[in-house]
Amino acid sequence: MDELAQMDAWGQADLVRRGEVTPSELVDAAIARIEAVDPALNAVIHRRFDAARAEAAGPLPDGPLRGVPFLVKDLDLHIAGEPLHCGTRFLADAGSTSATDDTLTERFRAAGLVILGRTNTPEFGTTITTEPVAAGPTRNPWNTEHSTGGSSGGSGAAVASMMVPAAHASDGGGSIRIPASECGLVGLKPTRGRTPLGPRYAEHWNGAVINGVVTRSVRDTALFLDVMSGPAPGDPFVTPPPARPYVQQVGADPGIVRIGLLDRPAQSDVVADPVVGETLRAVGGLLENLGHRVEASHPEAMGDPDFSRHFITIMAANLRADLDEWETTLGRTIGGDELEPANAMFAAIGGATSAADHLAATRWQHRWARRMAEWWDGGFDLLCCPVINGTPPPLGWLSDPEKGLDRVTELMQYTAQFNVTGQPAISLPLAWTDDGLPIGIQLVAAFGREDLLVRVASELQGAQDWTLRLPPVHA
Amino acid sequence: MDELAQMDAWGQADLVRRGEVTPSELVDAAIARIEAVDPALNAVIHRRFDAARAEAAGPLPDGPLRGVPFLVKDLDLHIAGEPLHCGTRFLADAGSTSATDDTLTERFRAAGLVILGRTNTPEFGTTITTEPVAAGPTRNPWNTEHSTGGSSGGSGAAVASMMVPAAHASDGGGSIRIPASECGLVGLKPTRGRTPLGPRYAEHWNGAVINGVVTRSVRDTALFLDVMSGPAPGDPFVTPPPARPYVQQVGADPGIVRIGLLDRPAQSDVVADPVVGETLRAVGGLLENLGHRVEASHPEAMGDPDFSRHFITIMAANLRADLDEWETTLGRTIGGDELEPANAMFAAIGGATSAADHLAATRWQHRWARRMAEWWDGGFDLLCCPVINGTPPPLGWLSDPEKGLDRVTELMQYTAQFNVTGQPAISLPLAWTDDGLPIGIQLVAAFGREDLLVRVASELQGAQDWTLRLPPVHA
Repeated sequence: MDELAQMDAWGQADLVRRGEVTPSELVDAAIARIEAVDPALNAVIHRRFDAARAEAAGPLPDGPLRGVPFLVKDLDLHIAGEPLHCGTRFLADAGSTSATDDTLTERFRAAGLVILGRTNTPEFGTTITTEPVAAGPTRNPWNTEHSTGGSSGGSGAAVASMMVPAAHASDGGGSIRIPASECGLVGLKPTRGRTPLGPRYAEHWNGAVINGVVTRSVRDTALFLDVMSGPAPGDPFVTPPPARPYVQQVGADPGIVRIGLLDRPAQSDVVADPVVGETLRAVGGLLENLGHRVEASHPEAMGDPDFSRHFITIMAANLRADLDEWETTLGRTIGGDELEPANAMFAAIGGATSAADHLAATRWQHRWARRMAEWWDGGFDLLCCPVINGTPPPLGWLSDPEKGLDRVTELMQYTAQFNVTGQPAISLPLAWTDDGLPIGIQLVAAFGREDLLVRVASELQGAQDWTLRLPPVHA
Repeated sequence: MDELAQMDAWGQADLVRRGEVTPSELVDAAIARIEAVDPALNAVIHRRFDAARAEAAGPLPDGPLRGVPFLVKDLDLHIAGEPLHCGTRFLADAGSTSATDDTLTERFRAAGLVILGRTNTPEFGTTITTEPVAAGPTRNPWNTEHSTGGSSGGSGAAVASMMVPAAHASDGGGSIRIPASECGLVGLKPTRGRTPLGPRYAEHWNGAVINGVVTRSVRDTALFLDVMSGPAPGDPFVTPPPARPYVQQVGADPGIVRIGLLDRPAQSDVVADPVVGETLRAVGGLLENLGHRVEASHPEAMGDPDFSRHFITIMAANLRADLDEWETTLGRTIGGDELEPANAMFAAIGGATSAADHLAATRWQHRWARRMAEWWDGGFDLLCCPVINGTPPPLGWLSDPEKGLDRVTELMQYTAQFNVTGQPAISLPLAWTDDGLPIGIQLVAAFGREDLLVRVASELQGAQDWTLRLPPVHA
């Protein structure tokens, strides 16, 4: 492993700014790492190394991440001239490529980032393990028999194995936080509307989906959030900007924060993972030692048994609408047998849903979100809870054709709620199992309060610096 | 007419603050005016005079509108214990009342307003004339044979005839601006998310609907906007707050504003009303005389022939979802024959729409909104255009069972576009026909820029004070 590998994006950009390395050296080193490590992981499913080398050599925009190598997930973000296959076979077979950059792609480029390729994702990002039939499974750098989580699992594996210091990710139900948790990374899902989805989309899954990144350091999370943030012309809603840049929140004193602790699934009929619960309580102790007010409390509505049904109604309807759009683009029908079984089922559910039922599910979510907000409104600053109800499962466990979906439901107890409310939430790599698998802990702030998440997260990184721990893929 | 009638809400509140009148005196005077004038207009379809008198006599919140009499539209806003019939027969027959105040009702009360009753609206607010079968037509104070516009036509007539200085209104396709235009009032449709729709709704018609008021003076529009503005807990998106209160924008210098003028429907196949076009050009001259840069220009996308189809798809699906909710509340099916014919048709369209088609219409709107935004992004501050393509039509013209819908389409050329983009837009009473019917002119600002609308509107009121003109109902 070269000496650049362990540096975060901030550190690598700093070397370029100080003239100690060139963008080409950063990019060449990242390419060498991808070539060395990716055969064991299958994280990078499309490579544009020649284009990246040319961009690194040419005049790069003088942004805060000038010259830093970067990867983009195979979902939610178009890059002019490059494929976007959404983890599907039918788009891979069609050789589909994008005509133009999306707004966020433009912002990544303007920051000076150099895009090396695309990372793996489950088909249409509808599950939490990255094992698409189209590109095969991505393996976890901490134990290659285990899942990386998903849907940003390719990005998770690439950053955890230090191919690149940060990578694009997106989160519609946990897809930034879950791979961050399972790969030992920092994964912030921003507030709804904080980062752009356009120009093609203004919302997806009725506002649940948001773009972001996975990183190793909290300061990178803050810096990337500054780079990504802000409305684009024609957005149907505009999220208030932060009072000051997020990088200024790194290391800033959060004061005494009132934190509610939830150490087991809010739905009473779900069996709690004991290791995760124990880890959560230990983090509660750490937060108390840092001077915060910690008590067992959470929004009651988190465990509403109707939540999943309405979430699936909306996700399925959006999947059907996505397929309709791809059918128009490709000029042909996409058969159910061209999709993985779970997505064929979701597409069928979506196709059988009426507009009025879709609106009823949307209104249910909006009303449920008000019940959730009462808890923050009632005086709590942060919710501290697990990311998933378990440790990273073995590959094949969640993709099992018979039992997979039930296992996904059992594991996915803590994340999708905040896609629906639009609140910011971060996964922090605060624990590892005895077997060396990462366990992320989630902090959730009120709408628009990424500033508080960055302050507390950087305090936690200061107390327990996870970036020193290396995955065995580098041993 | 008593001497209080011609005073705006600001002026009436000022008298109370200075101890020159009591809230009870303001309320009693308003009740007397309603009893004197409403038999000729049919604007106030539900009265709560005893409750209002008790509230005025009791301790009132010490808000900026303490003691000012107020009316609330029979749509989009619940008042605890009072009916909300949405202009329908079936809810009137059921004697439906609301259990609790909506968030905006709470804000109106906290400002010190005293609610005297409810104003008339077309059934479900789906047309632009206020002639519901349930409550009969509301008549225009400037000529009682003519329409008030809609859907906030009851509020329009009540304020134009000076029963109350301001009244609640709401706008999903023009329903604040059109009655303001036809009744000679100031009608601001705020930016999406500026005023609350909750707790029951977080969006309606996919974000097109927004609450507001109709007033006679620009300073009242600004003061009410301050009273109404701000997010509520659990809102799915939050609009950035203004840099300072809107009342501070009244009379503030707007500088030199770059204004595009559109004097005829952007759709080339619609016949332009010549009187409206002439009026619009005269206002362009007035704006030039005030020192602004005025040129013929508008967003090309305004005339997109597909706009109406997608707008109706979404409105119809929402109507079907609304009926589903009322059916659950009432515990019975609502037959098509219980609705007015146009709404029975919309409900059937909505019922036949799939979730995926509804999402396709939503995505079309979001992409179209980006095309609209390019014009403002390209350097224009305001669009100046008509509110409707015509003068206030006679009663019966738009509610004609055969030709009504086509006539609505012909008239409604300029408003719904800004419900879809979410931009703020204001109708100002800048002209009257030779027959004494009002013609409103619309100014449209970029997303979130009500501050600029208030500045330019107050400059226009200063140049041409419309509040001195009285409707013949008071002659």
